[in-house]
Amino acid sequence: MLVGTSTERKTKGEQTRAVILEAALSLAAREGLEGLTIGAIAACTGMSKSGVFAHFGSREELQIATLREYHRRFEAQVFLPALKQPRGLRRLQTLFTLWVAHVSEVEIPQDCIYMSGAVDYDDRPGAVREELVSTIALWRAALHRAVTQAVQEKHLHFSTDPDQLVFEMYGIMLGLHHDARLMRSDDSAHRATRAFARLIQDHRTHPEHQIQKVT
Amino acid sequence: MLVGTSTERKTKGEQTRAVILEAALSLAAREGLEGLTIGAIAACTGMSKSGVFAHFGSREELQIATLREYHRRFEAQVFLPALKQPRGLRRLQTLFTLWVAHVSEVEIPQDCIYMSGAVDYDDRPGAVREELVSTIALWRAALHRAVTQAVQEKHLHFSTDPDQLVFEMYGIMLGLHHDARLMRSDDSAHRATRAFARLIQDHRTHPEHQIQKVT
Repeated sequence: MLVGTSTERKTKGEQTRAVILEAALSLAAREGLEGLTIGAIAACTGMSKSGVFAHFGSREELQIATLREYHRRFEAQVFLPALKQPRGLRRLQTLFTLWVAHVSEVEIPQDCIYMSGAVDYDDRPGAVREELVSTIALWRAALHRAVTQAVQEKHLHFSTDPDQLVFEMYGIMLGLHHDARLMRSDDSAHRATRAFARLIQDHRTHPEHQIQKVT
Repeated sequence: MLVGTSTERKTKGEQTRAVILEAALSLAAREGLEGLTIGAIAACTGMSKSGVFAHFGSREELQIATLREYHRRFEAQVFLPALKQPRGLRRLQTLFTLWVAHVSEVEIPQDCIYMSGAVDYDDRPGAVREELVSTIALWRAALHRAVTQAVQEKHLHFSTDPDQLVFEMYGIMLGLHHDARLMRSDDSAHRATRAFARLIQDHRTHPEHQIQKVT
């Protein structure tokens, strides 16, 4: 290590950090954020505990870094591609479709840190809970903005309450996750899509036109 | 104990069992079903471990008995009172209203075993998971029946898909629970009620009459 240049050392450090985060994401997907311990990560990666500590000073720091990496990937898969769509209903619908795809492909086979975290941390105060809540709030703010833009573009009716729409979208997604994971239902993605279509339909500015477009 | 009559002994045994179950429900409300151990219950009740074992032969048996007692209370608070309402929309709406009240009064201040259990057991096979899934399926079958009756009574449109309606009702309730517990939102019961009103509205046989009533 001592012979490497500064750049090489940084790259190596970043690589090790990435290996730890990858192991942490995979462990959290099985055990939840509460299953993340420095010891478990050391065991998964074949590193020493002190080696892990060199990159993450505490268990809490590791949990928060894992949550941030999870969010970064979620954004890359769901949020950023949707921004390529025009503001308004198209973007909102794309957000939802990509979200369903993400939950179906990534989270149902493993677990969703947001949703298992919601249960693990709902009454456990501390920095991890704060990070989890602010991450979910960030995602919901993005949904809220997409709904507001769809109203501004007159795709959704001006009486639409964006908070209510976001509440209902989130409930649909919790239902999808619950039914697929616990009840082993194989049509919950389809049901979620139908529920969202009805939700949007109810808030369209011209529902009579939409009926023909939807079918 | 040896001097008591058979009836007295039985009553005492039942009383002890009830004390254990009460402690188990309270512990599970804080820690989830996974937090239930014979040792923890012994500590809570001041009994010996072998005393608890005399009533529940294993940790799993205790977890299942706790789940059943939880369900019995849920039924008594939500399901049975709704049966006093006439079949059809009135009964369905009463089921939902009592469910929201139950979640708001009992489950949000503590925790909902069904919902924390959904995360704890979604990928943990075994008898507790089986019991949890069949209990939730039982409750959903009751909701399904109430929807079907509302269609038979021509309160809801004949094209209504009861499975879809139950999926959406469950999602609304998961959203209520999530937002109240994790996000500390104070209007989630109100949002859940609005979401359900819209859901029913969309499936009414005479929506044009209903629009005037809702506003």
